[in-house]
Amino acid sequence: MTLLHEPHHDGSPRYVADDSPRLGDTVTVRMRSHVGDAIDGVWLRTTYDAEPVFHATTRTTDGDAVWWAADLPVHNPVTHYRFLIGRTDGTQQWLTGAGLLDVDAPDATDFKLTSYDPAPDWARDGVVYQIFPDRFARSAAADARTTPDWAVAAEWTDTVVFEPGDPHTPAQLFGGDLDGITEHLDHVERVGADIVYTTPVFPGESNHRYNATTFDEVDPLLGGDAAYERLSTAIHARGWRILGDLTTNHTGDTHEWFLTARDDPQAPTRTYYYFDHDGSYANWMGHDTLPKVNHGDPDLRAAMVEGADSVVGRWLRPPYDVDGWRIDVANMTGRLGALDVAHEVARSVRSTAAALREDPLVIGEHNHDASGDVDGDGWHGTMNYSGFSWPVWSWLRSPDTTARPFGRPLQVPRRPGPAVVRTFRAWQGALGWQATTTSWNILGSHDSARIRTMVGGDPSLHRVAAGLQFTMPGVPMLFAGDELGLEGVTGEDSRRPMPWQGADDWDTATLDTYSELARVRRSRATLRRGSQRWAYVDDDTISFVREHDDGSVLVVARRAAGPSFELPLTIGEHLVGTEPGAPATDGGTVGASDGPRLDVWSLD
Amino acid sequence: MTLLHEPHHDGSPRYVADDSPRLGDTVTVRMRSHVGDAIDGVWLRTTYDAEPVFHATTRTTDGDAVWWAADLPVHNPVTHYRFLIGRTDGTQQWLTGAGLLDVDAPDATDFKLTSYDPAPDWARDGVVYQIFPDRFARSAAADARTTPDWAVAAEWTDTVVFEPGDPHTPAQLFGGDLDGITEHLDHVERVGADIVYTTPVFPGESNHRYNATTFDEVDPLLGGDAAYERLSTAIHARGWRILGDLTTNHTGDTHEWFLTARDDPQAPTRTYYYFDHDGSYANWMGHDTLPKVNHGDPDLRAAMVEGADSVVGRWLRPPYDVDGWRIDVANMTGRLGALDVAHEVARSVRSTAAALREDPLVIGEHNHDASGDVDGDGWHGTMNYSGFSWPVWSWLRSPDTTARPFGRPLQVPRRPGPAVVRTFRAWQGALGWQATTTSWNILGSHDSARIRTMVGGDPSLHRVAAGLQFTMPGVPMLFAGDELGLEGVTGEDSRRPMPWQGADDWDTATLDTYSELARVRRSRATLRRGSQRWAYVDDDTISFVREHDDGSVLVVARRAAGPSFELPLTIGEHLVGTEPGAPATDGGTVGASDGPRLDVWSLD
Repeated sequence: MTLLHEPHHDGSPRYVADDSPRLGDTVTVRMRSHVGDAIDGVWLRTTYDAEPVFHATTRTTDGDAVWWAADLPVHNPVTHYRFLIGRTDGTQQWLTGAGLLDVDAPDATDFKLTSYDPAPDWARDGVVYQIFPDRFARSAAADARTTPDWAVAAEWTDTVVFEPGDPHTPAQLFGGDLDGITEHLDHVERVGADIVYTTPVFPGESNHRYNATTFDEVDPLLGGDAAYERLSTAIHARGWRILGDLTTNHTGDTHEWFLTARDDPQAPTRTYYYFDHDGSYANWMGHDTLPKVNHGDPDLRAAMVEGADSVVGRWLRPPYDVDGWRIDVANMTGRLGALDVAHEVARSVRSTAAALREDPLVIGEHNHDASGDVDGDGWHGTMNYSGFSWPVWSWLRSPDTTARPFGRPLQVPRRPGPAVVRTFRAWQGALGWQATTTSWNILGSHDSARIRTMVGGDPSLHRVAAGLQFTMPGVPMLFAGDELGLEGVTGEDSRRPMPWQGADDWDTATLDTYSELARVRRSRATLRRGSQRWAYVDDDTISFVREHDDGSVLVVARRAAGPSFELPLTIGEHLVGTEPGAPATDGGTVGASDGPRLDVWSLD
Repeated sequence: MTLLHEPHHDGSPRYVADDSPRLGDTVTVRMRSHVGDAIDGVWLRTTYDAEPVFHATTRTTDGDAVWWAADLPVHNPVTHYRFLIGRTDGTQQWLTGAGLLDVDAPDATDFKLTSYDPAPDWARDGVVYQIFPDRFARSAAADARTTPDWAVAAEWTDTVVFEPGDPHTPAQLFGGDLDGITEHLDHVERVGADIVYTTPVFPGESNHRYNATTFDEVDPLLGGDAAYERLSTAIHARGWRILGDLTTNHTGDTHEWFLTARDDPQAPTRTYYYFDHDGSYANWMGHDTLPKVNHGDPDLRAAMVEGADSVVGRWLRPPYDVDGWRIDVANMTGRLGALDVAHEVARSVRSTAAALREDPLVIGEHNHDASGDVDGDGWHGTMNYSGFSWPVWSWLRSPDTTARPFGRPLQVPRRPGPAVVRTFRAWQGALGWQATTTSWNILGSHDSARIRTMVGGDPSLHRVAAGLQFTMPGVPMLFAGDELGLEGVTGEDSRRPMPWQGADDWDTATLDTYSELARVRRSRATLRRGSQRWAYVDDDTISFVREHDDGSVLVVARRAAGPSFELPLTIGEHLVGTEPGAPATDGGTVGASDGPRLDVWSLD
């Protein structure tokens, strides 16, 4: 038995007849097994108001595949289910979202079918390009702007200051602006992205602007409201989408709401924050420059997230017409000690967006375990550090990387393929198929080391990572500059200005690889919506198929040279590879590789 | 390395300095490792408003134990944490409530420290004896009672009718009553129990009374309110406790609330139920004799669960003075389709009880995954089928048992010791230490086959199961008759009348074993509150230590004959065994066994 002969189910169309049912619908779900697997019964177990209920399946065969189909009543808004497999030898297994279980384990990784609307197609099918405005590009207008008091002007080619505690780290201002982005959309097109996500554009006394002074206008240093409108218009003119970035968890301590509140205990915005009797206030992770807002307060909720005139609503409307939000620190938003209204806040953001736009997207940042926050009517998905970045880092990282850990005191350790696949499966199980496929496959962000640095500067390993980003379930999100081979040992260091001036130094092989990967993903529904079945895994090889009625593919990723191996498949045309040439194939044989590479073939 | 050399933490006093902290407290938590384990760093990771935060530990050694201590801020009402272990070889592991993880997995099994009051000591330290009133004992008054129309009178020695669908199954009335229980409390004392839990005592047109016709009086067939008062008084006179059983999820279709509501759409109780326009109504699992009540309705909530005059409140007050409730179908209570107020209902039941009594207990029935419902301010614990009954059944069941499955279409399969221990750990991790140790270790109930039948009638295997019930973390709950070796292939069949008339046929060896196990558990704090570390596990052997400053013990359970094995311990006095004699011990050597048995030794 190969991995491909294991019982399988996921949320893709081959296995679930309707991935956006209404409450009360009945949806046919199917489990696949192999004719050689001596299974004599399969039951669908669902939880019905938290009570386990078993449903019979019907068995059909198709070649060497056996399909077990059952009707799943969508009784709860998010309906949980799993399969019970009984074998002729008396053994039993459960099939859950995290794979096969040999024991009777809790429900945390049950499959989930949600009756809430899925994220819009553009968000599930697109490629996201993340831009940190101060470091992307300067328009001609930038030269005329005055450097504010809090900032230290930097030349575009200066070295980024990034040590924690150095006052230059947040103050160093390179002067990138929104018209700079508008002028470089051809580059974004070359990369193959079609969703532009910028980190905050509201004024804040820092280069990162996560400490807003107001949400009522776009930073004049970025060109102001008019430049934002120009950017949005230009993006939409290409048929693309634009996403904003909002700190619903906190403001800057120079925010107009906060200044009023701090100076006057009777001010209407006083209740927006958590002030103590002594004037101290709750903040983000001990930073008193980032006062936390109180979502337990109806006035704050109205100002921030509820309705067309809230911050969330206002920028989704013309003339800015933003297509959705990436919500900063979504995990902590609405949570403080005994207060937990995080779900209500997420629900408000989503419903405000849904009331104003036909097809908005809301993505919650969660550098940890978002599983409790994404399968309902709140965030459509998350920035998938836990389920994607960290397992990929753990497989591909260089033992000698200069990259620093992100969010933990030790590096993610280097791990072999089987452990990495177990990690992927654990998180797919926890998040569920819909949230996994809507979440962003990121290799890093403005908050982390760059992937290029993580892999010790090796372009081939970097491209293997990129290949996984575009072929695993989920939406690829590049941090601008990844495609050029930029490096960075921390999030702050990763915010290096785009080297427009030194195009001769660009890693164009990697840029072309991103472009090709994006092209293939766009052309193949299976890479966007297909199932994922693991095919072959060893320490240095991770291989899987994505299957869809519009055509299936085989993906083989290697982090090192490795021998050929056999699969019970007929391998077709080579579609894309991250290195020149293509390994030989013959029937189900995948040829040896002399180094790191990722390849995609069609399956006949 | 033996299992005892693995890194360990649990919620017991050796590892957690305060198991009932207040919000805002800081609690020292400790992880234990072995000096031979090349660990060079341990961090405590907690989630702080859902954000992961790492805390340094300090290292001390004590013999061959290394202790890593850290201060855990109790920042959220239920604070989640785990340990990150870094080894000198660069590998890392996480220690969670389910054990060691080699990959970065989700938080579902993180340790949990709750700031809500724990269950009362009597509930954590006691032994529960479950009584099904119709089948326990008849007082002299029973003979004078008239058999109601719905019932078919049975002689005490008649065979129980139990086939599903047979109208005699719910109608067969043996006539046990509350004074019958009162008269047999010496038997309960002989067993060693001190908490009497009766299934419902409200009138219902069935022998099980889970279809109440009123909650305002005790069934006259049981002796009425006065008999209930006599029972409660007699139980309290012994220093014991009494628990009721309440169907918060539904009533009978002959209930006074329902009859009024059905007949008059304007009736005040109409909103207590989920009536559709056509007069149909929601019910329990398709049984229209059991209309489901609507906890979304404030009036129903007030009548059923809120305040001193609610059903929950009334019976906790004198003269009935019940010490708490076992809540039937707690998992479904307050859940129907898109409505989910289950937590609010649980919270109401608990706060109503807390307002009326000094130290009440509320246990929610959940034959499945209660992990989301027990670590907050609702149910103190559950009837632990998933985390106890089913793994024990899977280890000890006879391949030829006539027992029928409970709640699933196939028998729990027979599994080897390592799989069984993985199951125990998975559920301990999901429920958390406090809920696990407060939940009921049951080998069966009035809803399932009897353990004696599950093990194919083998008294020795039955006693091994009983031994686990009294030595594993959790509160032992016997279904009356287990101690005599009664059998039953289903829940209904298990409700056989207690054979008072045939004491010569009692399995007194098993009765004496229960009595001894209860005595040892009462005399040893470690069996009630001590840590649990796994010591040695093979297919046929499950062995663990329970450790406490008042004295630690070693438990060795065998389902078959097996050879001797070594542990890094010094084994002391033999405290109790389920078979005559005791295996030889010498230092850390546990002698061979020639068959199934469970033994407990003190540790020096």
